[in-house]
Amino acid sequence: MRTFECDYTEGVHPTVLAALTRTNMEQMSGYGFDPYTARAIERIKDACKAEDAAVTLLVGGTQTNMIALDLLLASFEGVISPETGHINVHEAGAVESTGHKVIALKSTDGVLDVDALEAYLSTFYADATHEHMVRPGAVYLTHPTECGTIYKKEQILRIRALCDRYEMKLYVDGARLGYALGCPENELSLSDLAALCDTFSIGGTKLGLLCGEALVFPKNAPKHLMSQVKRHGGLLAKGRVLGVQFDALFTDGLYEAIGKEAIRHARRIREVLIERGYPIAWESPTNQQFIILSDTEADALKKHVGFDLWGRADEGHWIVRFTSSWSTTDESVAELCNALPFRTALSDRF
Amino acid sequence: MRTFECDYTEGVHPTVLAALTRTNMEQMSGYGFDPYTARAIERIKDACKAEDAAVTLLVGGTQTNMIALDLLLASFEGVISPETGHINVHEAGAVESTGHKVIALKSTDGVLDVDALEAYLSTFYADATHEHMVRPGAVYLTHPTECGTIYKKEQILRIRALCDRYEMKLYVDGARLGYALGCPENELSLSDLAALCDTFSIGGTKLGLLCGEALVFPKNAPKHLMSQVKRHGGLLAKGRVLGVQFDALFTDGLYEAIGKEAIRHARRIREVLIERGYPIAWESPTNQQFIILSDTEADALKKHVGFDLWGRADEGHWIVRFTSSWSTTDESVAELCNALPFRTALSDRF
Amino acid sequence: MRTFECDYTEGVHPTVLAALTRTNMEQMSGYGFDPYTARAIERIKDACKAEDAAVTLLVGGTQTNMIALDLLLASFEGVISPETGHINVHEAGAVESTGHKVIALKSTDGVLDVDALEAYLSTFYADATHEHMVRPGAVYLTHPTECGTIYKKEQILRIRALCDRYEMKLYVDGARLGYALGCPENELSLSDLAALCDTFSIGGTKLGLLCGEALVFPKNAPKHLMSQVKRHGGLLAKGRVLGVQFDALFTDGLYEAIGKEAIRHARRIREVLIERGYPIAWESPTNQQFIILSDTEADALKKHVGFDLWGRADEGHWIVRFTSSWSTTDESVAELCNALPFRTALSDRF
Amino acid sequence: MRTFECDYTEGVHPTVLAALTRTNMEQMSGYGFDPYTARAIERIKDACKAEDAAVTLLVGGTQTNMIALDLLLASFEGVISPETGHINVHEAGAVESTGHKVIALKSTDGVLDVDALEAYLSTFYADATHEHMVRPGAVYLTHPTECGTIYKKEQILRIRALCDRYEMKLYVDGARLGYALGCPENELSLSDLAALCDTFSIGGTKLGLLCGEALVFPKNAPKHLMSQVKRHGGLLAKGRVLGVQFDALFTDGLYEAIGKEAIRHARRIREVLIERGYPIAWESPTNQQFIILSDTEADALKKHVGFDLWGRADEGHWIVRFTSSWSTTDESVAELCNALPFRTALSDRF
Repeated sequence: MRTFECDYTEGVHPTVLAALTRTNMEQMSGYGFDPYTARAIERIKDACKAEDAAVTLLVGGTQTNMIALDLLLASFEGVISPETGHINVHEAGAVESTGHKVIALKSTDGVLDVDALEAYLSTFYADATHEHMVRPGAVYLTHPTECGTIYKKEQILRIRALCDRYEMKLYVDGARLGYALGCPENELSLSDLAALCDTFSIGGTKLGLLCGEALVFPKNAPKHLMSQVKRHGGLLAKGRVLGVQFDALFTDGLYEAIGKEAIRHARRIREVLIERGYPIAWESPTNQQFIILSDTEADALKKHVGFDLWGRADEGHWIVRFTSSWSTTDESVAELCNALPFRTALSDRF
Repeated sequence: MRTFECDYTEGVHPTVLAALTRTNMEQMSGYGFDPYTARAIERIKDACKAEDAAVTLLVGGTQTNMIALDLLLASFEGVISPETGHINVHEAGAVESTGHKVIALKSTDGVLDVDALEAYLSTFYADATHEHMVRPGAVYLTHPTECGTIYKKEQILRIRALCDRYEMKLYVDGARLGYALGCPENELSLSDLAALCDTFSIGGTKLGLLCGEALVFPKNAPKHLMSQVKRHGGLLAKGRVLGVQFDALFTDGLYEAIGKEAIRHARRIREVLIERGYPIAWESPTNQQFIILSDTEADALKKHVGFDLWGRADEGHWIVRFTSSWSTTDESVAELCNALPFRTALSDRF
Repeated sequence: MRTFECDYTEGVHPTVLAALTRTNMEQMSGYGFDPYTARAIERIKDACKAEDAAVTLLVGGTQTNMIALDLLLASFEGVISPETGHINVHEAGAVESTGHKVIALKSTDGVLDVDALEAYLSTFYADATHEHMVRPGAVYLTHPTECGTIYKKEQILRIRALCDRYEMKLYVDGARLGYALGCPENELSLSDLAALCDTFSIGGTKLGLLCGEALVFPKNAPKHLMSQVKRHGGLLAKGRVLGVQFDALFTDGLYEAIGKEAIRHARRIREVLIERGYPIAWESPTNQQFIILSDTEADALKKHVGFDLWGRADEGHWIVRFTSSWSTTDESVAELCNALPFRTALSDRF
Repeated sequence: MRTFECDYTEGVHPTVLAALTRTNMEQMSGYGFDPYTARAIERIKDACKAEDAAVTLLVGGTQTNMIALDLLLASFEGVISPETGHINVHEAGAVESTGHKVIALKSTDGVLDVDALEAYLSTFYADATHEHMVRPGAVYLTHPTECGTIYKKEQILRIRALCDRYEMKLYVDGARLGYALGCPENELSLSDLAALCDTFSIGGTKLGLLCGEALVFPKNAPKHLMSQVKRHGGLLAKGRVLGVQFDALFTDGLYEAIGKEAIRHARRIREVLIERGYPIAWESPTNQQFIILSDTEADALKKHVGFDLWGRADEGHWIVRFTSSWSTTDESVAELCNALPFRTALSDRF
């Protein structure tokens, strides 16, 4: 049975696998001192139009977030995150393990409420006791968010302005960035992110790599970056594994193509869901689509197709997620079409 | 001009000062290996009816909280706190500096909402991804709370039961504990806390000491407690400074007497405030009394008496705090009476 | 030009690459909940004769060491390491980043001096101030060591006995373990390690994987292991990448075969070096061979073959390392034979 | 029986106690916002001839060291210390608890060997793998040292030059600084330290305060210093306790007078020890005097006078410490004279 539970159910994009295979027996230095890593970094800088950027290739998303924030923050500073933010919910306290508080603010469908951010900051600095409180040193965002939604450019510009006014850094977690870039609605290019962020990540794991996230510092590269990465257990001995993959991913527009294609499939999945009577939980322009099912409906549906029980809507109902990815094909969406019963059929059976 | 801004505006209770003076030139070993510390610990254990307890004397409240929680929690665990909790707001991230997340839950007037706690825990463990989330390893409470309110015994019993069910520790921050114990409404004695908590603190700083908090582990004393305290910078060379003070504080009922007397004064302060037309923000049975003033009223009042701008009620209004303490006397309350204008007079002037 | 600088210059063993390729488009759950990870763990437990073991698959060596030690140690404890130990020298402070002191003791050729260990411990506990000092909570060893040497069983038994006497854990870092197991001189099998250690690692990166270390807890699996791994940024989204690789590595004796074959090549390399007049720095039975060259000799030799400038012998001389690995072949050793000048020729040229 | 075991066996200097008593019932703001703290800081800046300095008053020595170093170091940097340094031996891993490695170098009688420091640094940066190692970000010294010895000005100048060359900070732990300043041999004044250090501490606890260390940043005050102190549990609610004490200590030359007088007594103690035949372990110009006794001699002597078993000289012999302090008087030294048997008498009895 085919599953659409998440965007990392398969291994590696065939083009990337071919590159790994082709270069496999070449002898290279470790720790990223190989020519493929060097070339991958150049390609990423080109894609971001950020020739002064420092780029480091890391293995996983949580690792990338904890390293990025530990490098951006002074030891006593915390990071503001929407309450739904991955660092606040699903990273097992990795950010706090480096000594930094995550300051959670209200969010709507995963997007940080900029008014709430502004109110928080003006209240914070108006409070005579704020030196007893954790100074917010950075803002953390995901684009797309955990809910599949994306930021408008105007929102990011306002957040950037607040960061400037209150001396904070801006970090955008782009674990699924390619699936935002693939949306017609998206207003934020790689070069926009390079212009507006202090650092941001370009996720590879969910875009067809075995593993790998590129962390981009558009300017002001941290000192001793390699040493800091190593200290957090993030320096891969065979750096080539990341270098060869990212080199392939950023060659001939593969990264962009993957994003666009997955969005095309996501929209077809959405249509199918609607056609069969499933209620959309909220609008998502990206590769994650959310519907609401009663517990009994969810139990019945999982005999037909794989999906993710994303979270509770209320007692008795699940928010359910279907995901497209680099590995989704017209065939697999057709399979979903064939397998997916009309929603009424699910309830009828109970 | 007299101030009622907080309960640590004066130095040390005269009886305690006399003990410090009397013992000053006695030669004693450092680090708590002096006879006064030994005797203080015995007196505290007696007061708690906890003969198996381990007690360590520490200098300050934030230090006590961070040490207590770091000792109770496994390295990867977090602590649940009401969102108003001191560790969540006013300790500059001390708990996070030791690697632990503070998981903030809804509170009403400083009291942790037990229903919200129960809902949080059942939702947490129902979530299939909870191993990606920070395991709650302890519950943190203040008694009295930052809002001057106190827990009912039934609330603590329910929290204890949830701690047992979900394998969590219970820590009660008693920075102002004496002012709860001094309330007729208080249902929780020192021996109740010893029976129900994994650890709790008995604050001395706000009860008339120069500095000093006693941290009580009623059973299961942590291994190498002294070494752990030292590692956090909490071991005082001249341990006698704490030992002599706590010995005096727990002699002849001084601690209890201070609490009761301050509550008597707090109630008189409350009466005076009401008499003069000041609106009580919420009911507090302890030594902190809260009223609401417009910004202009607050500006006018501060020419007559000292108080604390505790926080914003809304745009245009402050929550204002008046505090009694060990150092409050009938004379100082009479001074307040004389100095305090009728509220209407404040507004009239503008 | 061929290099023998280290044992991770190539990608992945062809058999393992075939397994990755074969399983690439299978849909699997993430985070290690895939059938290959499950089977890999069973195979590793079988190889260790440790059916009650918990095994977790991690990406890199530094990450494995910092996680292993953070799980073994209480927050206030430190770890004893030979002064040459990888955690003490070449991990950029990863262990200290988790709050633990590395207590460095004398070593001879990488091997912890057991007499020095015993003396340290008896002195430590005889010191009346030892609660002011960092309690040693674990002993860290590498087998083989950074110098290519290996422990005798009797040494490990003595260390184990000291660990028992002084309530310490024993962790063996097996980043190159396969190259010890492949030596005729080696006295410590996987099942010996499982019987004697609290935890140990089985390195894959240097034994032919793209990346991957297996961390084995023979008994007393840590609670919430996955959550703790996640907190340190060590949980791979596509856990299959490690699962498929370790499954292949522990199938049909591949791991053992790799070790034995590399040792056969190392011995031939050693012979060649001696034949050509290079002075052996010290005897190493494993895959790393060390010679001493003057600076001018080293400069001349690097035009012929790649090697590692391992460290300074003294002013004017280098300790130089040649390494065999899973990727070494009779052909590559023959290439070395052809390329390697007689040592006198190097000096003659200057 | 009188003891000379350490310099913190009594409470507080009578002049300081009088100041505490005199100001006791004055109402003051907390957290150091009181006039005595302000005045103490001005007096300390004057004494250091450092008008741009930031000064913060802290409770204890370990706390001061961990805060000072955490403020000076980037998160990934370590601190170089002589192997005998207090932070390396007797602070229970407090520095490591903040994530920083202590890099221990050879020392002679407590003094960092400047040649060893220079060799370490040049070797470190010559090592091609040094980004895998912990970058030394600061040098830590004690003056006087744990062995009672002091630095020559030329040594500090060389260390400062190395700090400048290798971009490191210099921190001098002055827990007993007053007892160096009181020595005729001392070449380093408070203003020299202010000119040469990035930060240094002026210990009060061992110079006659109940508790208290002043941490001086001669220039480049850390941002949000109060918040950082709070985060480490180092902010005292009743900051007046430190302010009033330091104000008194730095009034009318009390601090200098205490140091000089204690040194006068230390020299008389040294004479007495020599007269009675006790072998001096090494020369110390400051308030700590060290002799060597066999175990049986030590057992016998402790029936006559209190002293500290400082450490083992070898199996069978102790290094024994006698200490003068602010509380030593001509009478107490006379008591020692009367109580101290000739050394031969000790051995005769066994």
